[in-house]
Amino acid sequence: MVQAYVFIQAAMGKPSAVAEALRGLPEVKSAVVVTGPYDVIALIEAPDLQALGRVITEKIQTIEGVERTLTSLVTGI
Amino acid sequence: MVQAYVFIQAAMGKPSAVAEALRGLPEVKSAVVVTGPYDVIALIEAPDLQALGRVITEKIQTIEGVERTLTSLVTGI
Amino acid sequence: MVQAYVFIQAAMGKPSAVAEALRGLPEVKSAVVVTGPYDVIALIEAPDLQALGRVITEKIQTIEGVERTLTSLVTGI
Amino acid sequence: MVQAYVFIQAAMGKPSAVAEALRGLPEVKSAVVVTGPYDVIALIEAPDLQALGRVITEKIQTIEGVERTLTSLVTGI
Amino acid sequence: MVQAYVFIQAAMGKPSAVAEALRGLPEVKSAVVVTGPYDVIALIEAPDLQALGRVITEKIQTIEGVERTLTSLVTGI
Amino acid sequence: MVQAYVFIQAAMGKPSAVAEALRGLPEVKSAVVVTGPYDVIALIEAPDLQALGRVITEKIQTIEGVERTLTSLVTGI
Amino acid sequence: MVQAYVFIQAAMGKPSAVAEALRGLPEVKSAVVVTGPYDVIALIEAPDLQALGRVITEKIQTIEGVERTLTSLVTGI
Amino acid sequence: MVQAYVFIQAAMGKPSAVAEALRGLPEVKSAVVVTGPYDVIALIEAPDLQALGRVITEKIQTIEGVERTLTSLVTGI
Amino acid sequence: MVQAYVFIQAAMGKPSAVAEALRGLPEVKSAVVVTGPYDVIALIEAPDLQALGRVITEKIQTIEGVERTLTSLVTGI
Amino acid sequence: MVQAYVFIQAAMGKPSAVAEALRGLPEVKSAVVVTGPYDVIALIEAPDLQALGRVITEKIQTIEGVERTLTSLVTGI
Repeated sequence: MVQAYVFIQAAMGKPSAVAEALRGLPEVKSAVVVTGPYDVIALIEAPDLQALGRVITEKIQTIEGVERTLTSLVTGI
Repeated sequence: MVQAYVFIQAAMGKPSAVAEALRGLPEVKSAVVVTGPYDVIALIEAPDLQALGRVITEKIQTIEGVERTLTSLVTGI
Repeated sequence: MVQAYVFIQAAMGKPSAVAEALRGLPEVKSAVVVTGPYDVIALIEAPDLQALGRVITEKIQTIEGVERTLTSLVTGI
Repeated sequence: MVQAYVFIQAAMGKPSAVAEALRGLPEVKSAVVVTGPYDVIALIEAPDLQALGRVITEKIQTIEGVERTLTSLVTGI
Repeated sequence: MVQAYVFIQAAMGKPSAVAEALRGLPEVKSAVVVTGPYDVIALIEAPDLQALGRVITEKIQTIEGVERTLTSLVTGI
Repeated sequence: MVQAYVFIQAAMGKPSAVAEALRGLPEVKSAVVVTGPYDVIALIEAPDLQALGRVITEKIQTIEGVERTLTSLVTGI
Repeated sequence: MVQAYVFIQAAMGKPSAVAEALRGLPEVKSAVVVTGPYDVIALIEAPDLQALGRVITEKIQTIEGVERTLTSLVTGI
Repeated sequence: MVQAYVFIQAAMGKPSAVAEALRGLPEVKSAVVVTGPYDVIALIEAPDLQALGRVITEKIQTIEGVERTLTSLVTGI
Repeated sequence: MVQAYVFIQAAMGKPSAVAEALRGLPEVKSAVVVTGPYDVIALIEAPDLQALGRVITEKIQTIEGVERTLTSLVTGI
Repeated sequence: MVQAYVFIQAAMGKPSAVAEALRGLPEVKSAVVVTGPYDVIALIEAPDLQALGRVITEKIQTIEGVERTLTSLVTGI
């Protein structure tokens, strides 16, 4: 299992809608609206890096209101 | 009660209108047009973080002329 | 209860030691070494913002190897 | 009377001490430790811009633990 | 009297037109096209900060070709 | 097997020495001195993310002349 | 033969399609979707710098979904 | 005679066309497509700073495909 | 005669001393402590670009407390 | 033959000395002190990329006063 944090810049007024859409995805363990330079932070899990890559590019990046994503892999040390 | 500063980048020519709209919100304690890298700085208050989150994403970010917001929570130490 | 993500830039060679020291703090729910622009990401919890502020400035920032911290509050919406 | 926000980057572990030292200055109306890209935000007041400039460069910038300051003038519109 | 430098990013091909429009404003003491990260730098004067704020947001930011402005107040020390 | 690109900022005059030291590590598939914002780019491989994390923080970051590292995981899609 | 890494920022949802289109080009030795500040990293080869320049500006930059490219030349030391 | 380097960010797929258009201008001594954070670098010459300013804002910035320019004056020491 | 604005980042507590030292140089027409991302802004004049270059690198950059300078040439259009 | 521009950030007061040292190297076709975000720009030539890499890392980066270098390869299209 691989884990990653995904930092999301959302369109104005959209952070809650984006967080809610994220929470509808099985791979998303948590998705919260936050303060600071990012609008939403999601913790996601996938069987391997390939599956993780697809979740980010095909599911998360296509949610309406998502403007930019930055992914940080959990190395587990 | 939680407090936060919200730094706002406004569209060209809109800072005063944005500040005025902000001052119409009950949660906004002060909203001023400033010099420097941001255009408007608001000091807001809400009963808890959830309410604060909603004020920012549903009220402030939807004001016409607001292009980007960055929120700094007051930790009170 | 308030939650926050703390993004940490660590000195070269120190991320694991920083993550380990973080995991020794009761307020730290998780602390992992990550890839990307930050070295370590911690999820912390405290009774209120004041307590949260003290954990960050008095406990986390004083761990040997911590060079910069950036805190993102979970707004819970 | 002129007002300004001063955003302060503090040395690791020093934000509380810096905020406390700031609150000891008569020109400082408020000084709080915050989350986000800055560590401390002060609201200051002075009779005119000259006095304001001196407070920042001769009083605030010489507080132990202050690494960088960025000042935003309140224009009052 | 308060003075400020206003750094202006202009649309491609527009710096001279922007500088010329600026020079038509009574509050503008000088406005020149420059090299470096900004396109035009204006030195402006106003009776007080409120008037200065209005010149920037209502007159300068509404000149055709002005994309971003950054204002630096002269503290006079 | 997981793969990652590690972008390295090296001290002045050290890129070749850093690249050479990297090529001495079994996990490093290639390490080259490059032009552009980074000085050296390494392609590394490890059995899993934990092993990858250790290579980066305990082996690569402790090479003399390595000032900063930024890791990009290959997702394989 | 000259080699270069090309870091690519892709439109939301497009990294996989961009990587796939890249892998269709004979000059592209590898093209992978990655985590971190870039979306796709390609390793390309060309007989000389002129040919390399044309591959980047006429083939890679015209792939649908490519928003920005940054090229790092392999110096081979 | 004054000399300046002009760093140009070009639209995707346009660097060669921009460089070619530049080479058609008498004031342009050289214009080449480059790797790194800029797309094209031109070396230009003009009788004085005023003429130089006009070449940049009226000729170079109006070439189709030029998105941003940054000018560095040669001081000749 | 050539004119330039020099933006100066000063060490903490030093802006006034730097501005004062600058005002002692014949080539400096004005030097003021300012708010915003820079600490001091000087307007300088020299017979030609060579002389201007020497004023910046040999006189201004060697003033105690000057950490970084960024020069913007006045093109006069 | 390969050509590259090398943008150099120099220590305060050192640009002229750095430019002079550069002009002493056979591979350096021109080296000038400039205004803007860099201090010195050199145009260098070498038989191939390997030789170019060595000139930058072993000769240019070891000149006293050179703090950072950024290299842009001329692609010749």
